[in-house]
Amino acid sequence: MKDQKVLLYEMSWPEAKAYFSTHDIAIVPVGSNEQHGPPNPLGTDHLIAKGIAEETAKQTGVVCLQVIPFGVSSHHKQFWGTISVSPKAFKKYVEETCLSLNYYGVRKIVVVNGHGGNLYALMELARELREKGIFMSVFQWWTAASKLLPDLFKPEERRHAGAEETSLNLALHSNLVKMARAVDEEVGKHMLQGEGMTLPLSTIDETSSGAFGKTRTASVEKGRMVFNAVVGELVKHVILFKKAKVDDLLQKPKV
Amino acid sequence: MKDQKVLLYEMSWPEAKAYFSTHDIAIVPVGSNEQHGPPNPLGTDHLIAKGIAEETAKQTGVVCLQVIPFGVSSHHKQFWGTISVSPKAFKKYVEETCLSLNYYGVRKIVVVNGHGGNLYALMELARELREKGIFMSVFQWWTAASKLLPDLFKPEERRHAGAEETSLNLALHSNLVKMARAVDEEVGKHMLQGEGMTLPLSTIDETSSGAFGKTRTASVEKGRMVFNAVVGELVKHVILFKKAKVDDLLQKPKV
Amino acid sequence: MKDQKVLLYEMSWPEAKAYFSTHDIAIVPVGSNEQHGPPNPLGTDHLIAKGIAEETAKQTGVVCLQVIPFGVSSHHKQFWGTISVSPKAFKKYVEETCLSLNYYGVRKIVVVNGHGGNLYALMELARELREKGIFMSVFQWWTAASKLLPDLFKPEERRHAGAEETSLNLALHSNLVKMARAVDEEVGKHMLQGEGMTLPLSTIDETSSGAFGKTRTASVEKGRMVFNAVVGELVKHVILFKKAKVDDLLQKPKV
Amino acid sequence: MKDQKVLLYEMSWPEAKAYFSTHDIAIVPVGSNEQHGPPNPLGTDHLIAKGIAEETAKQTGVVCLQVIPFGVSSHHKQFWGTISVSPKAFKKYVEETCLSLNYYGVRKIVVVNGHGGNLYALMELARELREKGIFMSVFQWWTAASKLLPDLFKPEERRHAGAEETSLNLALHSNLVKMARAVDEEVGKHMLQGEGMTLPLSTIDETSSGAFGKTRTASVEKGRMVFNAVVGELVKHVILFKKAKVDDLLQKPKV
Amino acid sequence: MKDQKVLLYEMSWPEAKAYFSTHDIAIVPVGSNEQHGPPNPLGTDHLIAKGIAEETAKQTGVVCLQVIPFGVSSHHKQFWGTISVSPKAFKKYVEETCLSLNYYGVRKIVVVNGHGGNLYALMELARELREKGIFMSVFQWWTAASKLLPDLFKPEERRHAGAEETSLNLALHSNLVKMARAVDEEVGKHMLQGEGMTLPLSTIDETSSGAFGKTRTASVEKGRMVFNAVVGELVKHVILFKKAKVDDLLQKPKV
Amino acid sequence: MKDQKVLLYEMSWPEAKAYFSTHDIAIVPVGSNEQHGPPNPLGTDHLIAKGIAEETAKQTGVVCLQVIPFGVSSHHKQFWGTISVSPKAFKKYVEETCLSLNYYGVRKIVVVNGHGGNLYALMELARELREKGIFMSVFQWWTAASKLLPDLFKPEERRHAGAEETSLNLALHSNLVKMARAVDEEVGKHMLQGEGMTLPLSTIDETSSGAFGKTRTASVEKGRMVFNAVVGELVKHVILFKKAKVDDLLQKPKV
Repeated sequence: MKDQKVLLYEMSWPEAKAYFSTHDIAIVPVGSNEQHGPPNPLGTDHLIAKGIAEETAKQTGVVCLQVIPFGVSSHHKQFWGTISVSPKAFKKYVEETCLSLNYYGVRKIVVVNGHGGNLYALMELARELREKGIFMSVFQWWTAASKLLPDLFKPEERRHAGAEETSLNLALHSNLVKMARAVDEEVGKHMLQGEGMTLPLSTIDETSSGAFGKTRTASVEKGRMVFNAVVGELVKHVILFKKAKVDDLLQKPKV
Repeated sequence: MKDQKVLLYEMSWPEAKAYFSTHDIAIVPVGSNEQHGPPNPLGTDHLIAKGIAEETAKQTGVVCLQVIPFGVSSHHKQFWGTISVSPKAFKKYVEETCLSLNYYGVRKIVVVNGHGGNLYALMELARELREKGIFMSVFQWWTAASKLLPDLFKPEERRHAGAEETSLNLALHSNLVKMARAVDEEVGKHMLQGEGMTLPLSTIDETSSGAFGKTRTASVEKGRMVFNAVVGELVKHVILFKKAKVDDLLQKPKV
Repeated sequence: MKDQKVLLYEMSWPEAKAYFSTHDIAIVPVGSNEQHGPPNPLGTDHLIAKGIAEETAKQTGVVCLQVIPFGVSSHHKQFWGTISVSPKAFKKYVEETCLSLNYYGVRKIVVVNGHGGNLYALMELARELREKGIFMSVFQWWTAASKLLPDLFKPEERRHAGAEETSLNLALHSNLVKMARAVDEEVGKHMLQGEGMTLPLSTIDETSSGAFGKTRTASVEKGRMVFNAVVGELVKHVILFKKAKVDDLLQKPKV
Repeated sequence: MKDQKVLLYEMSWPEAKAYFSTHDIAIVPVGSNEQHGPPNPLGTDHLIAKGIAEETAKQTGVVCLQVIPFGVSSHHKQFWGTISVSPKAFKKYVEETCLSLNYYGVRKIVVVNGHGGNLYALMELARELREKGIFMSVFQWWTAASKLLPDLFKPEERRHAGAEETSLNLALHSNLVKMARAVDEEVGKHMLQGEGMTLPLSTIDETSSGAFGKTRTASVEKGRMVFNAVVGELVKHVILFKKAKVDDLLQKPKV
Repeated sequence: MKDQKVLLYEMSWPEAKAYFSTHDIAIVPVGSNEQHGPPNPLGTDHLIAKGIAEETAKQTGVVCLQVIPFGVSSHHKQFWGTISVSPKAFKKYVEETCLSLNYYGVRKIVVVNGHGGNLYALMELARELREKGIFMSVFQWWTAASKLLPDLFKPEERRHAGAEETSLNLALHSNLVKMARAVDEEVGKHMLQGEGMTLPLSTIDETSSGAFGKTRTASVEKGRMVFNAVVGELVKHVILFKKAKVDDLLQKPKV
Repeated sequence: MKDQKVLLYEMSWPEAKAYFSTHDIAIVPVGSNEQHGPPNPLGTDHLIAKGIAEETAKQTGVVCLQVIPFGVSSHHKQFWGTISVSPKAFKKYVEETCLSLNYYGVRKIVVVNGHGGNLYALMELARELREKGIFMSVFQWWTAASKLLPDLFKPEERRHAGAEETSLNLALHSNLVKMARAVDEEVGKHMLQGEGMTLPLSTIDETSSGAFGKTRTASVEKGRMVFNAVVGELVKHVILFKKAKVDDLLQKPKV
C-alpha cells in the first residue's frame, strides 16, 4: 500500500480513475480557523483534522481530500482572527464536495471533523445524503480520546484549547505552539444557566483567554498518545466501512 | 396573577397591548408530531411542551403562544404518522414568530422544546437572534429531569418514548396512552459505531418498536413528579430571565 | 365510525399505520394568531379552523392534524399581539407537512384555512403539489357561509372580525369573547382607491378598531347556524373527495 | 407635455436625470405570454399592458418602463406556447426593477398588470416595498372596465380571452387577431367544486379552447371604448398619486 | 417562409402548437436598460437584441420570443435611468423561460444577448441546462462584428456606447439617437490596475460620460453593415443548430 | 519583516489582534481540485495559489489565509477526481470568509485565484462587497505572466494544463509532476462554434487528455521565471493597495 498515492490533490486524473474505478469510499477532512487560546495557532482544528485524516488514508489506502479550512465558528469571533462561515454555507460547500465524489462512484464518506461547532451542519447533511444513497460518518478525535484514554487528562483539560488539544498540536506541529503563553482558567457559569437550559453563549461569555480550563499540562508525549490512539480507532472504522455494502447502510423502508 | 390572561391566543389585541407595553419576555412552546412507540400518542412532544409552557406561564405571568406542532423528525419517519419538517423550514417558521414578538418589544424568549431533534435548529436561530438584540433560551424537560430527579428512572427508562416520557403523558393526558401496548426493548448497536463516530442513524436502525429502552415502568405518579420538578425549574429560570436586563445578555465586543 | 380516533396527534403509530394503509386523504387545519378587534381572541382563526376541521374529521372518519397556528398576517401588525410569518415561510412549513403525509400514501389533502391572508400561499402550494401527484383543496368557511346562509348577515357584518366571525367564536368558545367591547365601525376608503386598483393596504388604513364593519349583532345562535352549515358543506366535500380517484384529479396533458 | 419623452427606454441618461431629479413616480407594465384561445395572440397580456401604460404615460408625463413580458401562467401550460415563470422568480425580477428605480428617488410605482395570475406575487411585493418606503399600486384594466362599463359585456364575455379582452386586442393590434377562429364555449364545473372551496385548477380543467365563455361578440369599437375608459381611470389615479406625499402612504405605527 | 409567423407573441396557441410539434429550437433575445452615453437611448441593448433576433427569426423560420428587457447592469448605476437586476434574479427569470419552452419540446435555444454584463449569468445557466438536456448558445453581436468587420472601427470605437454600437442604433432606430450629444472620451486607468488583476470597477471609475472611447464617428451606413454582417453570421449558426441532433450536443460521459 | 508571522492559521489570536489592529488588508488564496492532464496533480490550482499567495505575504507582511481548495470546475468533471462546487456555494463560502475578516477591520482583500473558472463568481462577489465598504481585487497569475513574459511560451503552451502551468508545478512541487505523461494535443473546434457565439462546452468537448495544447516543453527553469515574475507583480500591487485609502476605492455617487 505504501507506493500508492492517497492524497487526491497529489494524484493525476488517470490515478484518480484507477482508484475510483475500484473503490467507493473517501475521506474528507474539515476544520476551522478560530482562536485556540493564547498558545495555539488559529489553524488548530483544520491542521489536526488534516493530520489525522492523511495518516489514516496512508494506513488504509483510502483516498483523502484536501482539508476544508473554515467552519462554523461564530461563537469564537470576539477573539481576533477567527474566520466563520454560517452552517448553511458550510453545509453547502461540504455537500457539493461530497456530490462531486459521488459522481465517481463514492457512496461512503468519512468526514474527519476537527471542530465541534461543525457537527450539527455535518449531521444534517449526513441525513440528507443518506436519502440520496450516500452514507457519511463523522469522526471527532476528542470524543474518541476521552473513551480510549480516559485517564490521560482530567475533564478540565479536555475542553476547547485545553491541555489535550494543545498536546496534539505539540505532537503534530510544535513550532506553532507557544507554551509560555499557556493558561489555566476556570470556566464561568452564566447567570441564566439552569437545569435543562441551553443558552446561545459565546466563548467570551465563559472565558477571558479563549481556552476552557487547563492548558499548561500539555506535552508532546501525551499528544503522540492521543494521535496514535485516535488514528488507530479511525483506521479500524475505515477498514470496517470499506468492507461494508452500502445498500446495508441506507434508509430502511417503513415498518 | 390569577385573573390575568397569559395565553396569547386567548387575549384580544387591547389585552396584548397592555401586556407587551410592560413586558419584554414571552414563552414559545414547540414540539413535534412523531412516533413514540406503541402506547403513546404521536402528539406527545407538542402536547407536553404545551402543558409545561402554559403552566409556567400561569405561574409567572409571562405570556405564552400557541404551540408550534411540527418539528424536525425525519429520523422517525419509518414509523407511521410522523410529520417532519426540515431544520431550515422549522427554523424559519420559529424565527418569524420570534421576530413578530420582537415588533412588540419582546427581546427575551423562552422556547419550551418538547423534541430533542429540534435543538440544533433552535440553537442556530438563538445565535442569530442574539446578534439582532434578542436573547433566546431553550428548555428541554428531560435534561432537567435527569438532573433534578436522578434516581426516579434508570438510564434505559429515560430515552425517547421510554418510561419517563410515558409517565409524563400519563400525568397530562392519560386517556391518550395505552399502557397495555408498552414494551421494553433493548437498543441495538450499529455495525459502524466506534469511539468518536457520529452516524446519521434513524430510529429504525436501533429499535423495532420506536421506543428506546424500557417503557412498562411508567406511572401517573412519576409523571406528576417529573412535571412538577421541571415546571419548578423552568419557573425559576423565567423569573430570573424576566428580571435580567437584556443588554447584559447580548453579544460582548471583541477582546 | 365513532370509536375510531381521527386526530392524528392522539393516535399511536400503529393506529396511524392502520389508517394510512387504507386511506389516501387527510385534513390539515391552518390559521393565524392575529387581532380580531377588541372583543375577539387573537387565536380566532386557528381556533375556528381547528374546530371545523376536527368536527369534520369526526363526521367523515378522515384523519385530521394538529392546527398550524401562525399564518400570513403582516397587514394586521399594527394591532398588538399579531404573529405573522411570511408567505414563503408559511408555504414551506405547510408544504413539508403535506409531503410527510404523502410519504404514508396521502395524495388528497383538505386544508381548512381559517385566515384569508393565507390563501395565496396555499394556492401556490396547491399548484405545485398537483404537479407532484397530490391534490389539495382549500376550504374557507366564510365564503361558504355567505352562499349557504345569504340572509343571516348583511355584507357589513361579514368581514374580518365582524358579527359573523364573532358569532362563530361565541358558538365555539364563548368564554374568549368580550361582547361588551364589540364595536360597529365604518370602513374607510383610501385616497388612492379607484376602479381596478389594488393597493397594499393594512387594516389600520381602513379601521381604527381592527374590526371591519359591524360586530354587535353577533350571537351564539347565529354562530351555531354558521358552524353547522359550513361543517355540513365541508363534510359533503370530504366524502366526495374521499371517493374520487386521485389520477382523475391530476394535471392533464397538453391539448 | 407633448414634447417630453416618457418611455424610459427611449431616453438617454441625461434625459432620465432631468426626469428623476424632479419626479418620484414611475409606471411599470407587466404581462404574460400565454394562450388566449384560438383567435388571440400569445402576447395579449403584455401587449395590452404596454399599450395602456404607454398611453397613460403620455397623458400624464410620468415615465414608463419597457414591459416585462413573462409572468405567472402555469395554469395555461397545456395550451401550446405559454411561457411561465414561478411567482418567486417573477416577484424577484419585478422587485429588483423597482429597487433600481428607487435608487433614483422613485418611491411611487404604478404597475399596469395585464395578467391576473401575476396579482398575488405583485401584492406580496407591494407589501414588502411599502416597508421599504415605496408605495406600489397595481392596476388591472378588466376590473376597472366591469365597473366603468358594466353594460358593455355580459359576465360570460368578460373572462379570460373572452369578447372583452378580444375587443381590446382588436382595438390595439387587429392584425394579430383571427376572429374567424373565435369560439363561444361554456365553462365546466369541477366535480369537487363546492361552496367555500378553492381548487388548484388549470384552464384545461374548465375549457377545451382556452377561452372562458363567449368571444364572438368582440369588436374594434367595443375595444376602443374599453381602452379609453380604463386609460381615463388610470390617468386619474396617476395624477392623484403624483400629487400625494409618499410619507402619507407608508405604514402607520402601532395603535 | 414569408407567410409563417415567427414571433411567438404574435402567434395563437394553435399556431404555436403547429410550430413546436415540428421544431425543437427557439430564439430568446435578452438585453438591458442602461445608460449608453449622452446620445443613445437607455433601451439600446434590448432594442438591438430584439432587432437582430427578430430579423434572424424571419430569415430562418425559427420562433423568437419577446425580448427580456432588464439585465445585469449595476456597474452603470451611477448614470441615471439604469435598471439593474442581480445575476441571480436574471438567471432565474431566463431559466424559467427556457424551461417553459422545453415543456413544448424545445431542446435548442439561441440567446441573442445585447449586453455583455449578462454573459456570466447566461453561461452559468447554459451549463445547468445542458445537464438537463437543453443546449443553449449565446450570441453577442459585438464579438462577431470585430471578427467579421475588423477594419470598420478602431478598438477605441468598439467599446460600450462607442461608435460601433451607436451606429447600430442609428441603423435600427435613428430617431432615438442624438448625435449632437456624442462625445469622444479617453478611458481612464485605475490606480490599482496591474497585470493579472481584475477589479470590480464601475463605468464611472473609467469615464465621465458613460461612453468608453470614441462615438462621433458613428453612422447609419456603418450600422447597416454591422447589422447585416452579424445577422448573416447568426443565421448561419441557427441553420446549423437547427439541423444538429440535440443528443450530439449534450454532456459526454466520463473518460 | 522576516520575524513576523504572516500565515493566519499559524498565528494565535493575540498575534492576529496585533496585526488587525494596525492593518486593514488580507490575502485570500482560492483554487480548485480538478484534472490538469495526465502529468499534473489534481490540486494544481490550489497549490499554486497557495504558493504565490504565501510568498507574497512574506514579502509584503500582509496576512494570508489558508487556501480554499475547491472551486467551480464542473466543466472538467468527465476527467476523474475533479471536485466541483457551484458558483453559488463557492461565492457564499468566500463571501463569509471575507466578512469574517471585515469584522476585524479588513476592508481590502486580495484574492489570489488559481483557477479561471472561479472568476465570475469572485467578481460578482467583489461587486457586492464594494457596496458594503470592502474592496476586493482578484489576481490571476496566467494573465499576468502572458503580459510580463510574452515570449516565454507560445499561445498553445499557455492554456489549461499546458507547458506554462506545468512549469509552475515543476518549480513549486516537482515531485507531483510526471513529465513522462505529458502530451501535446491540438484543441478541437466545436461544430456550432461561430463568430460571436459562446457555447457551454466542457473540456472533454475539446481535448481527450484534459490538457489544452502543448505540455512537453515545460521546465523547472521556466516555472521559476513565471513564479518570480508573477509574485513580483503581485507584490507591487499589494504594496500599492496597502497604502491606498479604502474610501477612495468605494463606489462613487450618481453623476
